[in-house]
Amino acid sequence: MQSLQEKASAWSGVDQADAFAIDEFNLFEKLGLQSFINLSTNFYTRVYDDEEEWFRSMFSNSKKEDAIQNQYEFFVQRMGGPPLYSQRKGHPALIGRHRPFPVTHEAAERWLQHMQNAIDESVDIDQDSKVKMMNFFRHTAFFLVAGNELKNQNQNQNNQVACKHAANKPAEEE
Amino acid sequence: MQSLQEKASAWSGVDQADAFAIDEFNLFEKLGLQSFINLSTNFYTRVYDDEEEWFRSMFSNSKKEDAIQNQYEFFVQRMGGPPLYSQRKGHPALIGRHRPFPVTHEAAERWLQHMQNAIDESVDIDQDSKVKMMNFFRHTAFFLVAGNELKNQNQNQNNQVACKHAANKPAEEE
Repeated sequence: MQSLQEKASAWSGVDQADAFAIDEFNLFEKLGLQSFINLSTNFYTRVYDDEEEWFRSMFSNSKKEDAIQNQYEFFVQRMGGPPLYSQRKGHPALIGRHRPFPVTHEAAERWLQHMQNAIDESVDIDQDSKVKMMNFFRHTAFFLVAGNELKNQNQNQNNQVACKHAANKPAEEE
Repeated sequence: MQSLQEKASAWSGVDQADAFAIDEFNLFEKLGLQSFINLSTNFYTRVYDDEEEWFRSMFSNSKKEDAIQNQYEFFVQRMGGPPLYSQRKGHPALIGRHRPFPVTHEAAERWLQHMQNAIDESVDIDQDSKVKMMNFFRHTAFFLVAGNELKNQNQNQNNQVACKHAANKPAEEE
């Protein structure tokens, strides 16, 4: 069975080494806090204004300013800065915290399109860092798609086992 | 509804600030790689020799040397060292990667007892670092219990909705 990271690489087209090239130097020290705040603000402005209701509605239980803070604090922590996210919210637990959301291939692509547009508009981030960050984002988005499919597998298995109406009956083939 | 980190604090008795006091200084630079390898080796020797089959069996699908490497690479990465874990396996995704396992309160306490014994035997780690690390481990163990309960909630909800034998019947109270 393919691992989460193998699926992420296969689906994103970004191999593990390129995805984590963000660790080759300290992006937080290079770019500074404000660059990350600006990027997440631009990104979520696009997301909350998305014309596609199926995508926009996934974020409707969070306030935009909270979404922005959660994201830039995670980026800062993961890219060499102080652990702002964990101090406030604990482990990132990316798959666990995305559990309520249908992170499909289509949702990953739409998330990435908004992020590509936000990155393209950024005047704070140099070209090399933009490439590294987009590789990280692309791999991570499909890592979460892989995590989402794991959830569906578990639920299907559990339905077969746990349905009380089918007690002691052999599982039916469908 | 309590968040994952609120549950982790309530159940572990370790508040967020104490759990992430590991970030106050760089534990990897202070302790060095070999201290982490020794700790994880001691810990997993205890786990794989555990007399309690219910606990030991949770690890039986992994080779002991792989379990040791996964753990010390994560600790090194999280405590200020190079991102060894992510370079090899991607995001830690603590809740997602623990999804196959029944991370109960009892399992968390047993994990912590083995880790306390391993920490107590460590001659590489100073007392202050031991306290910080155990607070982090304790909070994290119960963070994973909280993640595990979220999984059960999802499955219960899903069973009510998806059971094909109960189509169009109202949900029964149990």
